Amino acid sequence: MVPRVRPTSGPVVAVVLLLSSLTAVTAASARPNRCRLVESLKAEIASYRPVVDSVLSYVRDAAGYKGRTWTELANFTDAFGYRLAGTKNLEASVDYVLEKLRAEHLENVHTERVQFTGWRRGKESATLIKPRVKNLAMLGLGSSVGTDLEGLRAGVVVVNSFEDLINKSSQVSGKIVVYNQPYVSYSKTVVYRSSGASEASKYGAVAALIRSITPFSLNTPHTGHQTYADGVKKIPTACITVEDAELLNRMYNRGNELEIILKMNPKFFPNVTSRNTIAEIKGKTDPDRVVMVSGHLDSWDVGQGAMDDGGGAFISWNSLVVLKNLGLRPKRTIRCLLWTAEEEGLIGAFAYLNNHKSELEKFNLVIESDEGTFQPYGIQFHGSETAACIITEVAKLFDSINATTTSFSKTNVGSDIEVFQNLNVPGAALLNRNEKYFWYHHTEADTMTVEDPDSLDLNTAMFAIVSYIIADLSVELPRA
Amino acid sequence: MVPRVRPTSGPVVAVVLLLSSLTAVTAASARPNRCRLVESLKAEIASYRPVVDSVLSYVRDAAGYKGRTWTELANFTDAFGYRLAGTKNLEASVDYVLEKLRAEHLENVHTERVQFTGWRRGKESATLIKPRVKNLAMLGLGSSVGTDLEGLRAGVVVVNSFEDLINKSSQVSGKIVVYNQPYVSYSKTVVYRSSGASEASKYGAVAALIRSITPFSLNTPHTGHQTYADGVKKIPTACITVEDAELLNRMYNRGNELEIILKMNPKFFPNVTSRNTIAEIKGKTDPDRVVMVSGHLDSWDVGQGAMDDGGGAFISWNSLVVLKNLGLRPKRTIRCLLWTAEEEGLIGAFAYLNNHKSELEKFNLVIESDEGTFQPYGIQFHGSETAACIITEVAKLFDSINATTTSFSKTNVGSDIEVFQNLNVPGAALLNRNEKYFWYHHTEADTMTVEDPDSLDLNTAMFAIVSYIIADLSVELPRA
Repeated sequence: MVPRVRPTSGPVVAVVLLLSSLTAVTAASARPNRCRLVESLKAEIASYRPVVDSVLSYVRDAAGYKGRTWTELANFTDAFGYRLAGTKNLEASVDYVLEKLRAEHLENVHTERVQFTGWRRGKESATLIKPRVKNLAMLGLGSSVGTDLEGLRAGVVVVNSFEDLINKSSQVSGKIVVYNQPYVSYSKTVVYRSSGASEASKYGAVAALIRSITPFSLNTPHTGHQTYADGVKKIPTACITVEDAELLNRMYNRGNELEIILKMNPKFFPNVTSRNTIAEIKGKTDPDRVVMVSGHLDSWDVGQGAMDDGGGAFISWNSLVVLKNLGLRPKRTIRCLLWTAEEEGLIGAFAYLNNHKSELEKFNLVIESDEGTFQPYGIQFHGSETAACIITEVAKLFDSINATTTSFSKTNVGSDIEVFQNLNVPGAALLNRNEKYFWYHHTEADTMTVEDPDSLDLNTAMFAIVSYIIADLSVELPRA
Repeated sequence: MVPRVRPTSGPVVAVVLLLSSLTAVTAASARPNRCRLVESLKAEIASYRPVVDSVLSYVRDAAGYKGRTWTELANFTDAFGYRLAGTKNLEASVDYVLEKLRAEHLENVHTERVQFTGWRRGKESATLIKPRVKNLAMLGLGSSVGTDLEGLRAGVVVVNSFEDLINKSSQVSGKIVVYNQPYVSYSKTVVYRSSGASEASKYGAVAALIRSITPFSLNTPHTGHQTYADGVKKIPTACITVEDAELLNRMYNRGNELEIILKMNPKFFPNVTSRNTIAEIKGKTDPDRVVMVSGHLDSWDVGQGAMDDGGGAFISWNSLVVLKNLGLRPKRTIRCLLWTAEEEGLIGAFAYLNNHKSELEKFNLVIESDEGTFQPYGIQFHGSETAACIITEVAKLFDSINATTTSFSKTNVGSDIEVFQNLNVPGAALLNRNEKYFWYHHTEADTMTVEDPDSLDLNTAMFAIVSYIIADLSVELPRA
C-alpha cells in the first residue's frame, strides 16, 4: 500500500508537513518521541470533548446504558454457552446476534459466509500408568489427529525446551514427548503449543503432551490451535496442566520409567460453513470510508467464551448501539465486524479480506478487542508515527476514566485485524488490566464471572468514542 | 484444667508475679497490651540465639538441610498422590513415613490405631438439563449419601443465604437447593458446606449443591466434610463451582425453569482402621513433659494433598530430624504427631486425646501446621497472656527471616490441636503468607506446584526452634 495523506473535509490540515518533521524520529522507536501535530488538528481532536462526555455519561447512567453490555453478554453466553466454529450452536448464536443488531436499527446488518474444515473434540483422556496410575487433566488441541479407539500406550520423554528435545532426540522414537517448558510470555511460549507436535514428530514421537500456556493454574488444562508442519507425520497432541507437567518432569528426572495411555477421538468436518456478522453506522459524508470495530463470536469448546471473545464482540456491537442511541453519526462509516472461526486461525478475517481486498484503501482504522475487556487504561496502536500522534491526542480525552495511556507497537496488534495490518491498514486495540487474561484463556474458566459490568461499560464507551472521532476527523489516519 | 505455673529447673523465675500484673490487661483483648516478663526470663529466651542461628544456617546450607523438606515431600506425594482416610494408599503412605522416621533414628517411632467409618467417592456428576444442557463441575462432600443409580432429576431453587432459603422455603419441597452464597471468609462461609444439606432438607429439598468455599476459582470445584443434623432426612450434597453457581443464579433470577440431574454413588465402610504416626526426641531431664509439633498425613481424594497437609506433616517430622542432626536435645520431650483422618472431622486427634487424656497436664504446648507452608512471618498463639508474652520473646529471635509477628487468638488455633486447646492446653500455629490457601484447598490444585523449597526450609526451622525453646525453657508455659 502507498502511504496516503488524504484530507477529506473540514479545516485543511498540513499533515504533510507533520510527516516530514516526524521522519526525524528514530526508526527503532515505535513510540513517537515528539508529536508535532499542527495545533489546528490538536484543537479539532480536543473539540470532541462533548462527545466523550456524552458517551461516558450515557454508559454510566442507570437510566441510560449502564450495565447493558454486561447484561447482553450474560444473556447471550448463558443461553448459548461456548460457540465452536462449525457447530449449529455457533450458527444459532449468530442468528441471535443478527436479530439483536436489527432490533437496534443498526444499518447494513448482514452476514457473509465462510467455508472451512471443522474440528470437533471427541472423548479424550490421558492416564499415567507408570510409575503409578493417575488421571492427567488434558485438552486436545484444535486440528489434532486422534489415536486408535483403544488409545495409544507409550513410554515418555520429558523435555523443557526445543533445545532439550534436540539433546534427547535419540530417545524420542516411539515415545510420547511431554513438554514442560516454563512460561515466559504468551507470545514467546505459545510456540510449544503450536509447533510442539511437529517438532516431536520429526524425531519419531508418537504423541506430544504440552504444558498449558499459562502463568497460573489450578490444575487447569488449556486448549488452543496447533499446526502440523509440512511433511511431518501428524501425531496426536494435547495440553496437560502445569502441575502434571511438573510432576512428570520430576518423575522423569528421578529415572522413573513413565508410561501414559492417551485416548483422543476428534472428528473433522470438511466444508462446514459459518458467517461473519456485520452491522454499520453509515457515514454521513464519506460512507465508503470505514473505521472498523471488531471481536470474534466463535470460541473454543470449553468454558463459555465470555472473555474470549464474547466481551470483545459485545463491546464492538454495543458501541454502535451507543452511538446510534445518542444520534452520533460520523462522516465515515463505522463498521462492526463479528468474526467467525478466529480460533481455528483467523479464518473469518482471511475470508473477509479476500472478499473485500479492493476496499482496503478505504479502511481508515481497524480496531479489535480480543485480549480481555477488563478495566481499560488506554489504546494500543500499530501504524504510522503521525497516526500514533493523532491516537495520542484522542487518548487524552479519556482523562476522566484514567485511560490516557498509549502504547505504540512496531508489530501488529490484535488477532483478526492482523490480516489488515499486514497490508498497511492502521490497527488499534484496547489496553486493559488483563494481567490475568491467560489464566482463563481457552479454559473452562472463561465465564461471565471474569467479566465486570463497569469495565464493559467503559470499554464499550472507548470503542464508541475512538471509532467515532477517527471516523469523523477532517483527515484520514496517515499510513506508514 | 487448673491454670498452672510450674517452674522446672534452671533459674527461678517469678512468673506468678507476672500473671497478677497481667490481669490488668483487659479481657476483651487477646493480645497482651504490655508484657512484663521478668528480665531474667527474657534474657533466658534471648540466650537461645545461637540455637536459632545454628538451625537457620543448617536449613540454608546446600551441604546441610537446604531443600530437603521439599524433596522429601515431593518424593512422598509423587509416589502416593492423595491419601484418603480409610484407603490402603494412606496406610501404605503411613508405612513409608514410619520407615523414614526410623531411618532418621528418631525415638519412640510408632503408630496408634484409630477406628472410624470410611467414606469413598463413587462416580458422580451434575448436569444442567433445563434451560440448556451443561455439565456442572462438582465434587461430592465427605459423608454425603448418594442418589439412586439412575440419578435424581429435579427442579432447582437458588438461594444466596440461609435467610434467603427461609424466604423461599415454600418453593423448596422436592427441589434441589443451590446455594450461591458470597465468600466472606472461610470460617464464616464454610457453614454453607457443612450445614447446607441439613438446612435445605428441613424444607423438603431432595439435594443441595453448594457454591465452593473459595475467594477465587478457575471453574474449580472444592470438596470437604459436611455433617447431617440430627433428625433431618439425609440428602445428597456436593459443591459446584463459583462460576456455575453464579450462572444458575442468573438463570433463576430471569425466571428460567431449571432442572438438574445429580448422580452420586459414594460408599461407606464401617470400622475401617488407620493410624496416627508418632516420633520423638526424648527430653533429657523431663521426658514426660511434652511439646507437640503436628500435621495430618491424610488428605481429601482430589489433588495430591501436598499443601493440605503434606507440607504441615513434613515440616513437623523434618523439624525433629533437624534437631536430631544438630544434636539439639531439650529438657522436655518434643513429640511429632502425624494425624490421620483429620479431613473426616479430627478423628485421629480425638482418638489420641481419648487414649492420652491422663497425660494432658504434661503437655506444655501443642503446635500444628494445617493452613499452608508458604513464606512464614510469625507465630499464632492461643493460651494465657503470660504464655503469649513468652511466645512474643521467642518470635523476636526470627528477626533475620522477618518472622517476628505474633498473633494472639482468643479462640483455638489450628485444627487437630483444637481438641487439646478445648482442654486448656496452649496452642500455636504458623503465620505464613497463605492468602491463596483457599484457592487450592480441597481441590485438584493441591499439588507440589503450590509448595516452595525455601519456604518449607524456613517453616521446618521455625517448628524446630519454637518447639526446642519451649521444650527447653526453665518454666512451663503458664496456662490460662
